[in-house]
Amino acid sequence: MGSGLLKIEALLRAFALGILLLGAILVALDSETEAIIYTIKKTATFKDMDALIALVCVDAAAAAYNLLQLSRYIVHTQIKIKSIESYLKLAWTNFLLDQVITYVQFATNSAALEASTLAITGARSLQWMKVCNRFTRFCVQIGSALLCGYVASLLMILLSLISAFNLFRFYCPKQFFLLKGR
Amino acid sequence: MGSGLLKIEALLRAFALGILLLGAILVALDSETEAIIYTIKKTATFKDMDALIALVCVDAAAAAYNLLQLSRYIVHTQIKIKSIESYLKLAWTNFLLDQVITYVQFATNSAALEASTLAITGARSLQWMKVCNRFTRFCVQIGSALLCGYVASLLMILLSLISAFNLFRFYCPKQFFLLKGR
Repeated sequence: MGSGLLKIEALLRAFALGILLLGAILVALDSETEAIIYTIKKTATFKDMDALIALVCVDAAAAAYNLLQLSRYIVHTQIKIKSIESYLKLAWTNFLLDQVITYVQFATNSAALEASTLAITGARSLQWMKVCNRFTRFCVQIGSALLCGYVASLLMILLSLISAFNLFRFYCPKQFFLLKGR
Repeated sequence: MGSGLLKIEALLRAFALGILLLGAILVALDSETEAIIYTIKKTATFKDMDALIALVCVDAAAAAYNLLQLSRYIVHTQIKIKSIESYLKLAWTNFLLDQVITYVQFATNSAALEASTLAITGARSLQWMKVCNRFTRFCVQIGSALLCGYVASLLMILLSLISAFNLFRFYCPKQFFLLKGR
């Protein structure tokens, strides 16, 4: 496998790892206390909304996955994989894991965006009131975390395409699912 | 290109097309009228929630895209593509379009699922009340549409992987982004 592509992959994973961690921390540490009526105060945290709890968990899990993959690159540069069979086993594993984690992270981020949009706009027909006009700073921080999430999604989509490339280019262009001789 | 894979692709697209249309129709035609207080009645439709409007639009667009792709298969069986360059141009276009549409459809479905979950559970800390205990039949129909959406997502993920396979297997396994001679 080209070591140039391996370097690009490692760099993208490191970026994704950093941005995912930043996103998870931004949501998890977000908290704002406001007075509701006279002395009654209310604190907004990410635990008020299931979608934000899921976002923290999924972002953290995706970051851990990228860290594991990064450690694989370090091992990869030291030992050479001998047979094409063992290379393909690894390539299939990476390919499937990348696909699952990328789709799950993207979907969770989109669900959190939907819940946050409802918190900004409210839903008049359902009598759900706006929340963000009161907890403005809290909502801005969640917004930044969602932006981080989408940047990480883009990086992970790119990574999952690279791992698909690394797998499929070993197959024959003329016949279905036949390995090429090296 | 193997005609066996082409047939599988066409079949998957036809299934995806049908299920996407079913999902869009289930949401768009869903409507339930309930008495709120005495004679005051309220009708729930998909227009009450932005996420459901987006779901109908995206499902319909994805169905139209799959219809276009299906018509391409019919043309494909009649004319032969001569050069590898024109094949690759087509393969890159399919690959990119499939990726974009699959991710957008999956994300929209997940956003609609999040909004619907909020309608079922409410959010006590935000004082958002439950809606589905009143409009039960409406919510069950939306739930079925979301299930259709996820089945369609799975089919489209499979299709986008097939189009990645059809593209990347033309590249050389040893050097980065070098075409193989046929």
